[in-house]
Amino acid sequence: MFYPKSVAIVGASSTQQERGWVARLITAGYKGRIYPINPRATEINGIKAYPTVRDIPEPVDYAIFNIPRRLAPQIMDDCVTRGVKFAHVYTAGFSETDEEGKELEAQLAERAKAGGVRILGPNCMGLYCPASGLTFNPDFPKESGNVTFISQSGAEATRFVFLGNDVGIRFSKVISYGNAIDLDAPEFLEYLADDDETKVIACYIEGVKEGRRYLDAIKKCLRTKPVIVLKAGLTESGAGAAASHTASLAGSKAIWDAFFKQTGAIPANVMEDVSDSILALLYMSRPKGRRVALVGRGGGIGVIASDICERAGLKVPPFRMETRKQLEKIIPEAGAGARNPVETTLGMGGAAEFYEKGLTIVDADPEIDLIITHLAVDVYGGQQPNLPEQVAKAADVLRENVKNLTKPIAVALYTGGHPETVGAVLEARERLLKAGIPVYPGVEAASKAVSKLIGYYETADRIRN
Amino acid sequence: MFYPKSVAIVGASSTQQERGWVARLITAGYKGRIYPINPRATEINGIKAYPTVRDIPEPVDYAIFNIPRRLAPQIMDDCVTRGVKFAHVYTAGFSETDEEGKELEAQLAERAKAGGVRILGPNCMGLYCPASGLTFNPDFPKESGNVTFISQSGAEATRFVFLGNDVGIRFSKVISYGNAIDLDAPEFLEYLADDDETKVIACYIEGVKEGRRYLDAIKKCLRTKPVIVLKAGLTESGAGAAASHTASLAGSKAIWDAFFKQTGAIPANVMEDVSDSILALLYMSRPKGRRVALVGRGGGIGVIASDICERAGLKVPPFRMETRKQLEKIIPEAGAGARNPVETTLGMGGAAEFYEKGLTIVDADPEIDLIITHLAVDVYGGQQPNLPEQVAKAADVLRENVKNLTKPIAVALYTGGHPETVGAVLEARERLLKAGIPVYPGVEAASKAVSKLIGYYETADRIRN
Repeated sequence: MFYPKSVAIVGASSTQQERGWVARLITAGYKGRIYPINPRATEINGIKAYPTVRDIPEPVDYAIFNIPRRLAPQIMDDCVTRGVKFAHVYTAGFSETDEEGKELEAQLAERAKAGGVRILGPNCMGLYCPASGLTFNPDFPKESGNVTFISQSGAEATRFVFLGNDVGIRFSKVISYGNAIDLDAPEFLEYLADDDETKVIACYIEGVKEGRRYLDAIKKCLRTKPVIVLKAGLTESGAGAAASHTASLAGSKAIWDAFFKQTGAIPANVMEDVSDSILALLYMSRPKGRRVALVGRGGGIGVIASDICERAGLKVPPFRMETRKQLEKIIPEAGAGARNPVETTLGMGGAAEFYEKGLTIVDADPEIDLIITHLAVDVYGGQQPNLPEQVAKAADVLRENVKNLTKPIAVALYTGGHPETVGAVLEARERLLKAGIPVYPGVEAASKAVSKLIGYYETADRIRN
Repeated sequence: MFYPKSVAIVGASSTQQERGWVARLITAGYKGRIYPINPRATEINGIKAYPTVRDIPEPVDYAIFNIPRRLAPQIMDDCVTRGVKFAHVYTAGFSETDEEGKELEAQLAERAKAGGVRILGPNCMGLYCPASGLTFNPDFPKESGNVTFISQSGAEATRFVFLGNDVGIRFSKVISYGNAIDLDAPEFLEYLADDDETKVIACYIEGVKEGRRYLDAIKKCLRTKPVIVLKAGLTESGAGAAASHTASLAGSKAIWDAFFKQTGAIPANVMEDVSDSILALLYMSRPKGRRVALVGRGGGIGVIASDICERAGLKVPPFRMETRKQLEKIIPEAGAGARNPVETTLGMGGAAEFYEKGLTIVDADPEIDLIITHLAVDVYGGQQPNLPEQVAKAADVLRENVKNLTKPIAVALYTGGHPETVGAVLEARERLLKAGIPVYPGVEAASKAVSKLIGYYETADRIRN
């Protein structure tokens, strides 16, 4: 399904060729054969078009349905005839809409099953697999990664590729499966458990049809790789919205609490939680424990950050005396600030200076399992003309010094709210992320992601041993 | 203290005049008389300097100590002689540092008390009162507002003025009171309870010396105006950090839980919570209940947003039939999206279009108490060349249509992570904020702020009746 040798696009548009399905595959660099199907066109995007799937001169691996719903059963018959293996039914308006749609969906499923065609959808965006050139959005990155996202919502699938893109996450596969009348989450998970191209699995799910199979599939995956699950609709309000959205039965909170506890799947409430966890999984080694060294500006922010860490399930213990003595040498005015949290002196310059020697000192403390450093731009009011350079400098020094650390580190980079400087901060973030350093929008996001990372490994130990 | 007719700056720097204390007052437009004190200068920033406080030709209302700590007791004697009413001891290195500092602090306190001088500090940033021109940072806004912030941390005082500035919060007064050997939080609160210039009070606090007096002062304020309290050091890690930072005894979580329950003070964990609550208090009328209409993009994001709202203590109930019928007329393809959450069609354009008629329809539903609308830029990958114009358009249409609503509304504006577009989003945010519409970085922040707003009014009812 992910590497089809040929793709038929049924309902290839002759009028909107620029961003249509044929154009998407071409843009994404799909290398197989494309067969546009359109009874009123001879070619589309420069590729010979056929009136029906039956007219294609060879068996076809993959067909995309972009046609009015009433035609779907008949097109499926054509697909059966032409030996199509997988049909991605992009078309919406089936069981999620009305009784007629429900009837059409049943016919579609029946004919596909009888004819041996597997269905993805209907009412879904389909597949994004940069390595093969399958995509549903021409603006998605062309580079492959090792994260696979399976999503019951097409909109979330799209949104997460872009959201992930912003923090340097690249995908092996993204699967939007919609109504899932045939291929469904459990089967994808069973496949992904053994997929060498997938190192991390993320799921957006509203409801599950085959509960036991889903549970077993998640467990199978978790024996070898992390799985993050955003279960939407866990509240009464959310369950109501899910019923409207995908006609899903959301299931009770108690059941899902047990699910997470039993499986060791990493829970997420919003898509940002998902990307935060992915960054930790990809860029941080396993912390030996929950004891954090906090490095950043002094004052109340250190106290607030300590509270945040402990609320997330971490600890900010005092350094041992040897560490404090060494820190006092490099931050002579620090006093209290040589304990933990460490107070770097003011500004980005103070942070950059500290990183040069301080990180190594903190890293060596046996009472510490990991480091979280926080950098805030908003303190300075955004009115300093050389702030962009200062931020870039701090990021560069950090990048350079992280290489020598023995313990994992996460960076909390507060972007601030100034139109004049926020661009520079985001660019610094990009440079850090490119260097494999996980960057979060604040200490809260960083500490939650780290705590979940540790929790994942703890459960994995229990399950695998 | 907030409106002194004259200010002596003891230790006015002759070498660093550009951003020194004298320059700060001049920049802030202080209208009273400034007396720079420096034994080795005849004038500073163009103002005649005096060798000691005693040499000033008139009694002085307010003196700022910017001198080595060992000189502090002697300068205090001079202040007593010259009839100084308030001494802001900016100098640090007292009881928070070592035994010698503790001793010097005791002397300072004793001499001031005997001489009738009130002390602010030591080890604090002092006052920011734009109406009188007192400030501790020349980059602070010159406009006055109606929020007063009292802070045990000078760094948080500075940071919050800038953070507030980004979301249009203006201050009546900001008080950084440091070691508080004389003037302390309870006395400020007692004063602020009756201060007509203060409509909302926010506090950053690590430890309280006079627990009963503090509790009573907070209660007094809450009889007439809202008080937001960020109590830092509520966890073991945070309490340890607070002990290092301000030598505060942080107090147990149980005591502070009872404090919030009993007083009706609005709790905050991070400074962003404080500004979020201020926006709700200033810009939203009291919602009649907790039933939210969610308006934004469709798909999973509506389900996720519904969960977020309920986790924050709100409800997202279905609209009544009449509302749905009317909505279906203006979003014909919506189907499920005419329930609640409302799905606007794709993109900023879809949102703008919906706002024109949709908000009024939603506003009229008797099952709804308030509206939260969410706009996300990150969905579109930041690659659309006209996105800045689209965002501005959506903000303009929103601004125009909010005027006619009978129920409060909050906007969740996800800025996204693209250096190319984030500036435009922040500018749109600024325009909305200037129009008195509360804007939050996401549905989570918006729903929490709204829920706390409702909680505040509920407790106020109970207390005041």
